[in-house]
Amino acid sequence: MNAAAERPVILTGDRTTGPLHLGHYVGSLKNRVRLQDTHRQFLLLADMQALTDHAHDPDRVCRNVVEVALDYLAVGIDPEKTIICVQSGLPALAELTMLYLNFVTVARLERNPTIKEEIRARGFGRDIPAGFLCYPVAQAADITAFKATVVPVGEDQAPLIEQTNEIVRRVNRQIGRDVLVEAEAVIPRVGRLPGIDGKAKMSKSQGNAILLSSSPDEIRQAVQRMYTDPNHLRASDPGTVEGNVVFTYLDAFDEDEAAVAELKARYRRGGLGDMEVKRRLEAVLQDLLAPIRERRAAYARDPAYVLDVLRQGTGRARAVTEATLQEVRAGLGLFRLDRPVLQAS
Amino acid sequence: MNAAAERPVILTGDRTTGPLHLGHYVGSLKNRVRLQDTHRQFLLLADMQALTDHAHDPDRVCRNVVEVALDYLAVGIDPEKTIICVQSGLPALAELTMLYLNFVTVARLERNPTIKEEIRARGFGRDIPAGFLCYPVAQAADITAFKATVVPVGEDQAPLIEQTNEIVRRVNRQIGRDVLVEAEAVIPRVGRLPGIDGKAKMSKSQGNAILLSSSPDEIRQAVQRMYTDPNHLRASDPGTVEGNVVFTYLDAFDEDEAAVAELKARYRRGGLGDMEVKRRLEAVLQDLLAPIRERRAAYARDPAYVLDVLRQGTGRARAVTEATLQEVRAGLGLFRLDRPVLQAS
Repeated sequence: MNAAAERPVILTGDRTTGPLHLGHYVGSLKNRVRLQDTHRQFLLLADMQALTDHAHDPDRVCRNVVEVALDYLAVGIDPEKTIICVQSGLPALAELTMLYLNFVTVARLERNPTIKEEIRARGFGRDIPAGFLCYPVAQAADITAFKATVVPVGEDQAPLIEQTNEIVRRVNRQIGRDVLVEAEAVIPRVGRLPGIDGKAKMSKSQGNAILLSSSPDEIRQAVQRMYTDPNHLRASDPGTVEGNVVFTYLDAFDEDEAAVAELKARYRRGGLGDMEVKRRLEAVLQDLLAPIRERRAAYARDPAYVLDVLRQGTGRARAVTEATLQEVRAGLGLFRLDRPVLQAS
Repeated sequence: MNAAAERPVILTGDRTTGPLHLGHYVGSLKNRVRLQDTHRQFLLLADMQALTDHAHDPDRVCRNVVEVALDYLAVGIDPEKTIICVQSGLPALAELTMLYLNFVTVARLERNPTIKEEIRARGFGRDIPAGFLCYPVAQAADITAFKATVVPVGEDQAPLIEQTNEIVRRVNRQIGRDVLVEAEAVIPRVGRLPGIDGKAKMSKSQGNAILLSSSPDEIRQAVQRMYTDPNHLRASDPGTVEGNVVFTYLDAFDEDEAAVAELKARYRRGGLGDMEVKRRLEAVLQDLLAPIRERRAAYARDPAYVLDVLRQGTGRARAVTEATLQEVRAGLGLFRLDRPVLQAS
């Protein structure tokens, strides 16, 4: 336990708006399974953050707490090594957010490029929920509460870590010493996996995702529908590999790099049909997802265990986040109901 | 206790940025002492709200938690009848605020006339702390957490209650039943007491206030400096009563209305000097403040008692606010770590 405490602390997690898919697997889950052996890793099921743009569908947010937890366990996140916790079970995060909101200006939040882009993408227009504008501050509370120094983020999210570190510096300056620690954004080497339709973002709601819980049939159908080279009409035609989703996925999932290189060469020359490439990809994906799906189903049959994992993880996370909150409160000099001596006028 | 629970619930309180003065006495404290016999009254020492524009002086905010509590006890707030509680000791308020922020748009907060005016008055310009913009939401959390139906506010603050009730309706609509209750703004009949310099706002920082803890000398000097009729140079001159602070204070504090009416008539006719009116006002204020100052000093000598009042009051308030939070969480359908059965896919 002491050795674990000296490891670098990593905070990561997912908004609980839907079950996870292959994009999450490549972009983060695989990495997390590896990092749990070298880091003190906290995985946050971010249901409170999910509410900032799903306030009108809290059922979905709640339901997916368990779905995402099942995905974690299914890919090999080990609750003995990684602390899996539920954000809404950590009240210290709300209290830290309220304190930090006083150290950030509205103008600064509105300038945040990630927020600007997300506001545009969600079509909020002028009707941005206040919670959404403030979510980078809530995220700063998450990161700092765990004293995380390593935060894996997508490349478009680096400004969120910058915002966190600004808050860290301001709060530390007010306190007069370094109670909070700055975090480093780690951007994964693997780029974002496109959807099966070739669109940049894989997303369940766009219907272009392969979920980790997909059935063999769903996997087969998804691969069949996969975007390839629209000009590659006959097997004998030369085809293009770049932007061809089937090859992008082979690059991401097929461990036999030499075989993939060979296929690419044949495809470019002409003489290799889409069906043959898709058959190979399907086999790779079925092999990858079969054990994940099986483990997922097994955990789903044992809800008491899953709930226990979340309870225990959240309990451990509560101790860590409460300790940070108390340090910040004491550092700022908030009123202490438990103080032994009262200095009155 | 059951009878008390059926009384209308009133939430009121003060930002802990300085000790209270005569303006508070006339505008709210006197009323609160009366209301504690007919209402279930919660008095909130709003240190978290004070931080929204005093984040760089948390010491002041902390120190004044006790100062304001002493003022409450000194004027006759009875902790057996009124629950005195410290805002930062009630984490449910932060959690409710985080939830409510998702039900209010940024544009709506920016349109709030009270906020607009306060932003102007504080000279924030573009550098509004996010916490300040969001404080009406935090205030909605305060009011609804206690299920207060009566909220005394200054006339310029009625829009804050409107904002609260909007949140109440939105959250209830999302939940599908009336978990939260709407509150009514009660605007006190007595207008705002001017400062001794005749300015509309009495405020310690402007040096135009008479604190409840003022010494006899400070009271005497304040009355001497008091703004009267600048054209009333000799006792024999006719004088003006309107806008003459000495008479405004006599109206507010002298219980012998007939005598005050008689003095006004003499002042208007000519033949009554400022000194004589001031002597009368000073006597009235010394009589009013002497027992308050004495009780205040006695409580200040017993800090353990004061701390105990705050601990007990905050404990009782915690139970009430936590209960409301749990109702809102359950109503919205947030994930429950304590749920007995887990429904997994």
